[in-house]
Amino acid sequence: MAPRQLHLNVNTLNAGFYSSAWRAPSSDPRAYADIAHYVKVAQIAERGTLDAIFLADVPAFSDRPDLRPFQALEPTIVLAHVAAATEHLGLIGTASTSFNDPYNLARRFASLDIASNGRVGWNIVTTADASAARNFGTDELEAHANRYERADEFADVVTALWDSWEDDAFVGDKATGRFIDTAKVHPIDHRGRHFSVRGPLNVPRSVQGRPVLVQAGGSADGIRLAARHAEAIFSVAHTLEGALAFAGTVRTQARTFGRSGDDIVILPGLATIIGSTEAEARRREEELWALTPGDYGLRRVAGILKVDPSSLDLDGPLPEVARPVDGMQTFFDALVGAADREKLTVRQLIRRFGGSTGHRVIVGTPEAIADNIAAWFTAGAVDGFNLMPDVLPEGLEVFVDHVVPLLRKRGLFRTHYSGRTLREHFGLPRPASRFAPGTAVSAPRVAAGR
Amino acid sequence: MAPRQLHLNVNTLNAGFYSSAWRAPSSDPRAYADIAHYVKVAQIAERGTLDAIFLADVPAFSDRPDLRPFQALEPTIVLAHVAAATEHLGLIGTASTSFNDPYNLARRFASLDIASNGRVGWNIVTTADASAARNFGTDELEAHANRYERADEFADVVTALWDSWEDDAFVGDKATGRFIDTAKVHPIDHRGRHFSVRGPLNVPRSVQGRPVLVQAGGSADGIRLAARHAEAIFSVAHTLEGALAFAGTVRTQARTFGRSGDDIVILPGLATIIGSTEAEARRREEELWALTPGDYGLRRVAGILKVDPSSLDLDGPLPEVARPVDGMQTFFDALVGAADREKLTVRQLIRRFGGSTGHRVIVGTPEAIADNIAAWFTAGAVDGFNLMPDVLPEGLEVFVDHVVPLLRKRGLFRTHYSGRTLREHFGLPRPASRFAPGTAVSAPRVAAGR
Repeated sequence: MAPRQLHLNVNTLNAGFYSSAWRAPSSDPRAYADIAHYVKVAQIAERGTLDAIFLADVPAFSDRPDLRPFQALEPTIVLAHVAAATEHLGLIGTASTSFNDPYNLARRFASLDIASNGRVGWNIVTTADASAARNFGTDELEAHANRYERADEFADVVTALWDSWEDDAFVGDKATGRFIDTAKVHPIDHRGRHFSVRGPLNVPRSVQGRPVLVQAGGSADGIRLAARHAEAIFSVAHTLEGALAFAGTVRTQARTFGRSGDDIVILPGLATIIGSTEAEARRREEELWALTPGDYGLRRVAGILKVDPSSLDLDGPLPEVARPVDGMQTFFDALVGAADREKLTVRQLIRRFGGSTGHRVIVGTPEAIADNIAAWFTAGAVDGFNLMPDVLPEGLEVFVDHVVPLLRKRGLFRTHYSGRTLREHFGLPRPASRFAPGTAVSAPRVAAGR
Repeated sequence: MAPRQLHLNVNTLNAGFYSSAWRAPSSDPRAYADIAHYVKVAQIAERGTLDAIFLADVPAFSDRPDLRPFQALEPTIVLAHVAAATEHLGLIGTASTSFNDPYNLARRFASLDIASNGRVGWNIVTTADASAARNFGTDELEAHANRYERADEFADVVTALWDSWEDDAFVGDKATGRFIDTAKVHPIDHRGRHFSVRGPLNVPRSVQGRPVLVQAGGSADGIRLAARHAEAIFSVAHTLEGALAFAGTVRTQARTFGRSGDDIVILPGLATIIGSTEAEARRREEELWALTPGDYGLRRVAGILKVDPSSLDLDGPLPEVARPVDGMQTFFDALVGAADREKLTVRQLIRRFGGSTGHRVIVGTPEAIADNIAAWFTAGAVDGFNLMPDVLPEGLEVFVDHVVPLLRKRGLFRTHYSGRTLREHFGLPRPASRFAPGTAVSAPRVAAGR
């Protein structure tokens, strides 16, 4: 059996994960809306034999556009462009199940999967952002449970559409004039609570069968969605113990859906601030923090906690705060967890999380980062990480040139791509179409009692 | 004043406009789902300094997938890829107002417009295809008038979103930390019969202001939509007189909406089968017809007429057929018009239209085609054509190498691109944002009495 392999994506958060990244000396403030920036990041990632580029998304302004970049360009458009400029790199785009239609989404990702020769993944999100809802005809978000119910059915419809062509439906025989064997292209005839979709998709199956399903979101409903559908998970993990527990929960729950539980690639976010010495890395962080405007950190932390910023005593401990019923639960838990564990004041908490995303941050040398990655990976807590460099492309360049070689030296990470598709990079099986004759239906089953 | 310039797009109907194009010796049957095919066509078009590549679309199987290729890959994905492989060529993609959401569509085309440095056009269609409706939760199409009412409001929302950023909203000042001047980014607060959209768009304005609005569809509702919104029209014209009349109608009607009427580029479809002699061109057509499977032509003509194929007497004249109330009206008129004018039997009609799209076809030499294009253009009947080569890429290559030089020699067509954006290619003004201070609102006005 081949040794377990580490997987690394780069989560391309515009200028970098740090809120002030766009103000760093190496940054171009226009990069957030410049396709060349994304192409450059992708090409560096491919040079480092990373598994994939990952793009987050919200279909609305998010955070503070007056103070920092946001996700502007629609991810599938960016990835189609990046596909043309890369050969191996996986391409994972986020798209919301609350504000899309399954036929269009299935078709767009299937088209991208064909255009890239099978390198695509869809990151399923339900979007916990009321400003997005207002762009789509409603003033309020659907309740959390309803959003996840819709997401579950949405993923069923999309995977059925991706399966609607058998692999050998294309004939293309000039002599006989037969183009498609339409007996091998199947209507899906889906009629559910949220969607009625006849199908089939008007796009053939790609070389990897269908795009990889990725999921992000750590609520109970989110974990259930991941356990049922996800082939890769972008999770939040601040401690090794927490990551081990999360992996156990997901894999166990996946088995209740008839899955093996081992064919899920778990990749928590990992933000990095790298220096050639620890002191240099700390200095780099200080500089980025110094560039973060006055009240941005306070407002960001208060936003995650869902409290009024003025209610917080900066030099006191974090007051008791109710866990929000919707959105940002994992980031809430990360903040409150750190405050409890380390007895942080509100000011210290803001310093820790105010410039950041809520994901774990390592500030240190390439060696320290490689050690930490190796430790989490060999402990079985993760299959790799969704990397978030502090500043892009600079921080990724440093990672690729200084951390990747260390991981390769330890035999943890590939020195070249051995496969072509994202499924091959992730070590995931190529799914058979559920409609192919003799296929034991591999579609996720609905757990008993639901 | 600069002399009026001819405009030419290439309508990239997969293997070519002829139904059997995929069986031609030069064709690759897999081209319809091969992104490299579209890139190749685009690069040939760019070599010929054409204005744009144009992609039709239906979000469902259309026509006869057992016998011929269809639009599989989603146009904006194809165009994003093509954008990366070209520098000047315009990129026009079709997307349905019936089966999309205005925020997502506005965002996708705006993203593509930025990724391509302002080369994008959106071809607005309402989709007259019941099989599409069944992929989107309904068994039946909305009535024609309702679809067009929705399309009208849809276009209003999309253009408002594209205007929601003033040109100078981006600040990106590292020194002060100001990223966007949010006072220059405007909610659109649209509340209409079909849509409620708050906005603003989370994508800045592109170098050409916003994508070019293109419209296709010649019903009365379609012409009204074009007169109100379109900056370019993909029409159907079989006779010079018909084309002159259409141009007059559209421009007159545009004036009732407060537009000048002259800032609309009218480009009928023009299918070409080219040979170095007329006999060779005729032979080429014979060969393509011979490759069209037995009943395809009959079924296609019967489908446009909306009659049972078995009800037609092949050697008799076309019987009285009622004009369909929905879909394909322009193609219906073309068929019935030709049968009347030329006293064609059903068999002759099938021979004429059975392998074709319903658009005008010229079978002839480069000189004959250049003469015809020049005659229609100089008569003021058209501003150019949406070209449909018989076989792709071969037929486009022949057009670019043999017809384009003749048009250039006559001073009708550019020898190099003088602009960068699609608006510049088409000679269209760059619209100001309706929200910019001092802008006389340039948004289309609703005609009195509606």
